[in-house]
Amino acid sequence: MLGCWRAAAAISARSGRWAGSLRGRRRLLLLSMAKSKFEYVRDFEADDTCLPNCWIVVRLDGRNFHRFAEQHEFKKPNDDRALQLMTKCAQTVMQELEDIAIAYGQSDEYSFVFKKKSRWFKRRASKFMTHVVSQFASSYVFYWKDYFKDQKLLYPPGFDGRIVLYPSNQNIKDYLSWRQADCHINNLYNTVFWMLVQRSGLTPVQAQDRLQGTLAGDKNEILFSEFNINYNNEPLMYRKGTVLIWQKIGEVMTKKTKLPKEAEEKEVEVTRTRTKVVPLHCDIIGDQFWEDYPEILAEDS
Amino acid sequence: MLGCWRAAAAISARSGRWAGSLRGRRRLLLLSMAKSKFEYVRDFEADDTCLPNCWIVVRLDGRNFHRFAEQHEFKKPNDDRALQLMTKCAQTVMQELEDIAIAYGQSDEYSFVFKKKSRWFKRRASKFMTHVVSQFASSYVFYWKDYFKDQKLLYPPGFDGRIVLYPSNQNIKDYLSWRQADCHINNLYNTVFWMLVQRSGLTPVQAQDRLQGTLAGDKNEILFSEFNINYNNEPLMYRKGTVLIWQKIGEVMTKKTKLPKEAEEKEVEVTRTRTKVVPLHCDIIGDQFWEDYPEILAEDS
Amino acid sequence: MLGCWRAAAAISARSGRWAGSLRGRRRLLLLSMAKSKFEYVRDFEADDTCLPNCWIVVRLDGRNFHRFAEQHEFKKPNDDRALQLMTKCAQTVMQELEDIAIAYGQSDEYSFVFKKKSRWFKRRASKFMTHVVSQFASSYVFYWKDYFKDQKLLYPPGFDGRIVLYPSNQNIKDYLSWRQADCHINNLYNTVFWMLVQRSGLTPVQAQDRLQGTLAGDKNEILFSEFNINYNNEPLMYRKGTVLIWQKIGEVMTKKTKLPKEAEEKEVEVTRTRTKVVPLHCDIIGDQFWEDYPEILAEDS
Amino acid sequence: MLGCWRAAAAISARSGRWAGSLRGRRRLLLLSMAKSKFEYVRDFEADDTCLPNCWIVVRLDGRNFHRFAEQHEFKKPNDDRALQLMTKCAQTVMQELEDIAIAYGQSDEYSFVFKKKSRWFKRRASKFMTHVVSQFASSYVFYWKDYFKDQKLLYPPGFDGRIVLYPSNQNIKDYLSWRQADCHINNLYNTVFWMLVQRSGLTPVQAQDRLQGTLAGDKNEILFSEFNINYNNEPLMYRKGTVLIWQKIGEVMTKKTKLPKEAEEKEVEVTRTRTKVVPLHCDIIGDQFWEDYPEILAEDS
Repeated sequence: MLGCWRAAAAISARSGRWAGSLRGRRRLLLLSMAKSKFEYVRDFEADDTCLPNCWIVVRLDGRNFHRFAEQHEFKKPNDDRALQLMTKCAQTVMQELEDIAIAYGQSDEYSFVFKKKSRWFKRRASKFMTHVVSQFASSYVFYWKDYFKDQKLLYPPGFDGRIVLYPSNQNIKDYLSWRQADCHINNLYNTVFWMLVQRSGLTPVQAQDRLQGTLAGDKNEILFSEFNINYNNEPLMYRKGTVLIWQKIGEVMTKKTKLPKEAEEKEVEVTRTRTKVVPLHCDIIGDQFWEDYPEILAEDS
Repeated sequence: MLGCWRAAAAISARSGRWAGSLRGRRRLLLLSMAKSKFEYVRDFEADDTCLPNCWIVVRLDGRNFHRFAEQHEFKKPNDDRALQLMTKCAQTVMQELEDIAIAYGQSDEYSFVFKKKSRWFKRRASKFMTHVVSQFASSYVFYWKDYFKDQKLLYPPGFDGRIVLYPSNQNIKDYLSWRQADCHINNLYNTVFWMLVQRSGLTPVQAQDRLQGTLAGDKNEILFSEFNINYNNEPLMYRKGTVLIWQKIGEVMTKKTKLPKEAEEKEVEVTRTRTKVVPLHCDIIGDQFWEDYPEILAEDS
Repeated sequence: MLGCWRAAAAISARSGRWAGSLRGRRRLLLLSMAKSKFEYVRDFEADDTCLPNCWIVVRLDGRNFHRFAEQHEFKKPNDDRALQLMTKCAQTVMQELEDIAIAYGQSDEYSFVFKKKSRWFKRRASKFMTHVVSQFASSYVFYWKDYFKDQKLLYPPGFDGRIVLYPSNQNIKDYLSWRQADCHINNLYNTVFWMLVQRSGLTPVQAQDRLQGTLAGDKNEILFSEFNINYNNEPLMYRKGTVLIWQKIGEVMTKKTKLPKEAEEKEVEVTRTRTKVVPLHCDIIGDQFWEDYPEILAEDS
Repeated sequence: MLGCWRAAAAISARSGRWAGSLRGRRRLLLLSMAKSKFEYVRDFEADDTCLPNCWIVVRLDGRNFHRFAEQHEFKKPNDDRALQLMTKCAQTVMQELEDIAIAYGQSDEYSFVFKKKSRWFKRRASKFMTHVVSQFASSYVFYWKDYFKDQKLLYPPGFDGRIVLYPSNQNIKDYLSWRQADCHINNLYNTVFWMLVQRSGLTPVQAQDRLQGTLAGDKNEILFSEFNINYNNEPLMYRKGTVLIWQKIGEVMTKKTKLPKEAEEKEVEVTRTRTKVVPLHCDIIGDQFWEDYPEILAEDS
């Protein structure tokens, strides 16, 4: 099972005293010949290698997550459990797969950026896409109960993914900035929208009408004057989304060891450096972030 | 949240009496302008439309399932729970996604064949691949306990996928035949291999050496003479794999109804026709199957 | 020169008593090392293999041929010299390249259909496209004077090309029908248009206005009632375009031979069968053509 | 003719008093309907847009130019007429097409580098490839006699082309360096090879055997000691190939003009700046060239 000896399976049908019916033996013979006869179908697989020396982005989106959110009673406009579960899945993807330099998530989407020089699976696009979305999807169900507790998962959710290449560092920074600007715009809108619905009792259609044509400043004004909310004090996770990067963490452990010339074991403190995926909720549009973490876009990346 | 009003979100920052700091207001203004400045990155997405009038196959494989099988104590050479869970996931994929005409699975792989004329997601390859593998992966975790009972799932598994196009009906039949011939060859090998290990006490290496260079007939002979097993009596699911097709099922239901001229409701038997995904374990290499189910490859497919 | 021994050229720089300057020797050494250092750039070439078992069409179009026709005083609406030169070039393409089953041309465009099973240049799309257009373009200049006599060619013309795959025989027939229907529609329009300009003295803009919104029947009516032209009597080459197919031709040749038992050589008539590219001006939209020439789409094609 | 009014040709068949046969009118009606019925075949064209922000290289090669060179008696190892004709064709390509920043040629090949930011034909790969090779091929025949004089062109030559993308400036410089290193290695080999054949009377096979396994230094040594040739004094065009770049040229012209307050026209010298394609035979592997011509790789390119 599971393909482990497939390659080794040299087959054909000499057949000796075997008790099987003649028909059975003939069928086995034919099947074995058949396999090589059919193998031409492998030539129909197209090569989908990604251009070298480009950043590879896989962006994943929840499928029908508007409905999914309703059915699982997500808090509006932001549900901490849902956002944290998304981030947990994204961390799992970064740890299980190779060469992901940075990831960025907001709402029901996550973008994974593979290193320019990555040679993982020979840069085959289908491998990148399917490994990301399948690992993310299985993790979503696996870790669901850690975040949603008694709220039962009603059905297995779907996700879609796409792959995009970016040649230059400026391009990849602009891609991530685009997603964060999108996060900001949506979150501001949704924050006001749900205030109007939840606190002022407007219907969704009335709220939509009220916001039609308003600018960012107008929305801030509504939040402040009507709901006494300063948008800039809203949680960073909502306003900025989540950035996942690799960081070296010094872990202090105690270890039993027997020093030379001493008779007994002793507990010794040892600091071990591990690389961990760490979530940040900070601005990635300005230069500061990239100056703080130059290794993310470093040339050997 | 969840992108529902994204498109509508017309934003910029005129801003009136808003109480936010000047810096905050400026940042909002810049972010809004930024989004449109960054949107050029969308042009880097490549079109991956599949050629029309071709069968579209998405084949999915378990990632590192050899290790996964060990850790979850799969029965060798075939674990009914694992095979049935794979089939349950594949059924879910067929029901949740559109235009899948037939699927075929064996071991830790499943192939999904989308109709020649499918216009689902404008035939974009990435959509087909990622929807299949993500739905499959989330279903695998979701339905795990229905098949594995007390055997806990230790971690979320990964799957990979690829997409291949087949222009003619002969090509797609040959593709499926290739997978079934592969199933046969692997299963015969694995059946003998594990008999040698489990019953004759050979080490895996010894069993491998013993089978080196043997033909199908030799393996049948070993099974029969040493273990009194007639390979042709092995379960069809192991030898043929699993074919999933759509079938019309007549369901008899009782329904309460009030007939005209009668005073009281009465229970009436009603037959409703539903289309269901049905698993078969039969030969698909010969012509018989395709003659029995001509609608699978029918021209309007 | 010309790459003939390139592969054999094993190079580096041991260098013995050679009289070259130290700097020259160092540079040669560096250049040789450089080549292998630079060879990574080959990995950037993408695979562009065409899907097997599909008809491959390369369609070529003249670049700026409206201007080219003006400058070379092409007769309006059809210039026999120009059409025949196009066909001569297409014949050359069919003879010089491999596996072209049929070609169809009209106006300044030509479509070449490569056999479904062609393995020419491993079915690489760029090879098909560039060989077709370069052979066509060089032939256009080479054979120009055979058709245009004293009319000098003023500059080297350009052509563009594209490649399209068609999975089924119906698809490829429909493709060719599409081009022939296009020929008909354009030729009918142009015939009336130029009559109005050349015989009735309308300006181009007036002629265009006159034809605005007219249907095929209207145009026929104008031709008949105003110019006494029955469109169906116009030359087939104009109305149907040109189809190029391979045909077996029996050539009768006289050959000198010495028969046994005879002292002297004698002239003997010999019939040799050759395959030639033959132009036809017939309907290819209806079934008749395909019934008359079944070998064009034959399965082993 | 020539597609100029194609788009305008709205057609169908209302048909009035037209004198055509009923059968003719029906056929026209059917043809017109047919066109729209067939137009679905356009959907089979695949999008082949090049990734933005990458250098686009089209490299062209002579087809069977070994044979072509023999038949047209090219001088070995380098034929000035052939090299200069290649360069004339490449200049024509640069002038007729858009956005070519630099070209490099040697032997029977030429590489054209389109600007990173080029939007020519929406960056469609097939357009780039086919325009380059067709313009080159027609120019080759057109300008042949200017270089080969009495040596008649025997048949129209073919060329193939391919397209490759390079994301970074370093990549494109390395690509060009790779081609120039290739030029050097081949030319050194060919120079010695033909000396051995032409002067020492070796057969080609003997010459090949003699050179088997020799290094660059060995070849220089042979040239110097046996033929008294210092390879570094060989013409630069042979050793370095040809680089084509755009250069501003100040042209001094005399122009007749009538100055105010003067009665008669006078000849005045005017300097006009034009951009011209200029051939260079210099090293492009080192940094010097790129420092001398920074505009070639400039960011707005």
